[in-house]
Amino acid sequence: MHGKYKALWLNDDGFLEVIDQKKLPFEYETIVLKTTDEIVLAIKDMTVRGAGVIGSVAAFGIYIACLENQNNYADLLVKAKQIRESRPTAVNLMWAVDKMLNLLKNSENLVDDAKAYAIKLNDEEALESQKIAKYGCDIIENILKQKNKKTINILTHCNAGWLAVIDEGTALAPIYEAKKRGIDVHVWVDETRPRNQGASLTAWELTESDVKHTIIADNTGGHLMQSGMVDMVITGADRVSANGDVANKIGTYLKALAAKDNDIPFYVAIPASTFDFNIKDGVKDIPIELRSENEVKYIKGIDNNGVIREVLITPKDSPAVNYGFDVTPARLVTGLITNKGVCEADFDKIQEKFNKQ
Amino acid sequence: MHGKYKALWLNDDGFLEVIDQKKLPFEYETIVLKTTDEIVLAIKDMTVRGAGVIGSVAAFGIYIACLENQNNYADLLVKAKQIRESRPTAVNLMWAVDKMLNLLKNSENLVDDAKAYAIKLNDEEALESQKIAKYGCDIIENILKQKNKKTINILTHCNAGWLAVIDEGTALAPIYEAKKRGIDVHVWVDETRPRNQGASLTAWELTESDVKHTIIADNTGGHLMQSGMVDMVITGADRVSANGDVANKIGTYLKALAAKDNDIPFYVAIPASTFDFNIKDGVKDIPIELRSENEVKYIKGIDNNGVIREVLITPKDSPAVNYGFDVTPARLVTGLITNKGVCEADFDKIQEKFNKQ
Repeated sequence: MHGKYKALWLNDDGFLEVIDQKKLPFEYETIVLKTTDEIVLAIKDMTVRGAGVIGSVAAFGIYIACLENQNNYADLLVKAKQIRESRPTAVNLMWAVDKMLNLLKNSENLVDDAKAYAIKLNDEEALESQKIAKYGCDIIENILKQKNKKTINILTHCNAGWLAVIDEGTALAPIYEAKKRGIDVHVWVDETRPRNQGASLTAWELTESDVKHTIIADNTGGHLMQSGMVDMVITGADRVSANGDVANKIGTYLKALAAKDNDIPFYVAIPASTFDFNIKDGVKDIPIELRSENEVKYIKGIDNNGVIREVLITPKDSPAVNYGFDVTPARLVTGLITNKGVCEADFDKIQEKFNKQ
Repeated sequence: MHGKYKALWLNDDGFLEVIDQKKLPFEYETIVLKTTDEIVLAIKDMTVRGAGVIGSVAAFGIYIACLENQNNYADLLVKAKQIRESRPTAVNLMWAVDKMLNLLKNSENLVDDAKAYAIKLNDEEALESQKIAKYGCDIIENILKQKNKKTINILTHCNAGWLAVIDEGTALAPIYEAKKRGIDVHVWVDETRPRNQGASLTAWELTESDVKHTIIADNTGGHLMQSGMVDMVITGADRVSANGDVANKIGTYLKALAAKDNDIPFYVAIPASTFDFNIKDGVKDIPIELRSENEVKYIKGIDNNGVIREVLITPKDSPAVNYGFDVTPARLVTGLITNKGVCEADFDKIQEKFNKQ
């Protein structure tokens, strides 16, 4: 494996190397993680972030823990617990740790087996991403055909590319596939306040991958859609309820409303593991994370001497609130692009395709 | 006049004193403008901004020009031209200069007359604002009565308060009036990227005026509305077409869509002079200003040493676009709160009330 277009890989010494996403888009640096403590810290301080990427780091983290413990399963359980608890709300993290532990339960060679299983898990995720890429790109081709156009303009929100999900992401996977198929693709990148994952991570990723793009303030998408400058919207999702409501980065709902108002297809790209079948009404019941107001009040950038600085952008004493996600009702979603094909955002259709097999 | 809750006033020496809005919300400083050149510069570099405030500065600017020229009308015309051209797209600026010149055409004492006319113009604007305040606050009281609630939660976008429009603004005027009437009012302040007029100017203004408020990323309003945390939306407008379409700061349209989707009243507060009867279809025909991409790519804040700094928040080479305004279709507007009363955003109703008198 190598660093180009990947968020993490095993380096030549057999340790886990990751891109330090905290420093993007200002500096490209990688960090080698050799111990469980380093794995835990990298997840905690958001050196690595994004559902899929955290899962993969956790899986390789179990391998790193095995390296430290050699062949002691009891010791491994202690280290695994630390990794599992490094971020309390990351479903993929827990899933990956539990899956690895389960696979290793009867292993006689923890180190070699953990390495093999982590690579396998990673490859399986990559395969899911490739399938999302393919199904999503078929939609892009259809839209171009229908409109008899050469260039597709896709609006995306937040970051659901290869910095977030192994190997090419979810929302961005069809875009990378389009580029491979020789389609002229241009991406409108919502900056995605308050954490600016669009303006920092997505714009950086698209630059690295040589995909044409333009950064816009989150306020801008409505005007672009009204003016015929957007052909489709693709976002990722953090959780999709059984009825097809989509929890994703705050602001997604506003773009979905604008897409509906202007008859623009609005797609959500997800691996099937994103469904939460226990929640029947996403708008009502998906819990929304309330994050620190400082993410709204302060912003990080680079000054003209190349120094990364954080500055306050509001009156010091004005309060702010910071909801991390919102829920887009299924009625605004044209379709869910999954590794098992495209599915309507509809309770029965989702049950049929994903929950009754 | 004095500086509290006013963007400009004549000081004890008879010169024009203005709040330096470039430094808000980080530093409160006023600047005394004694010459035409200083007036022109203050408008150009956005020391003063906001439609009404620019108009008033221009009117007082004519008085300052008269002071410089004493009683020479020909010289005044030269200075007036400089003021008139200090910002090319500010309708109020041109209107105020032309009005002053017209009033002064036959004056035998330019200095005294200009001072009197500028004060009169300013007072007339203040009166318009007071009427908007009253009509708007009546709506607030009705909503509280209907909902049987004690606290009103109002979402606003950009800055249309006393830093923008003499004397209490447009969108914020009903809010100040509500406070005067003893209503418990809380304002959700959209930060309003990319220039952050909400997070900087509106939040500062509300702090100064002791109005409860909370700053939110522009992405957040949809979730708040979905969750029952917004009772009404009030924004200002830069131009309203004959059919009631509303051009306002970029992002207004997205909030109007969310308000409609959640049955929340969406009001636009304007002086009657904001109507452009020449434009019959605002969505199609109101021109949208394309501003510098640097307003998206760079942001100004204050570091932890109290130094105001500008930082780059995107990859250096990623392009950005920056449309200044969008147009909210009349169908999403509950009503227009004007100095002549509340009017439906409808061609015939607008004609009847404003254009056939």
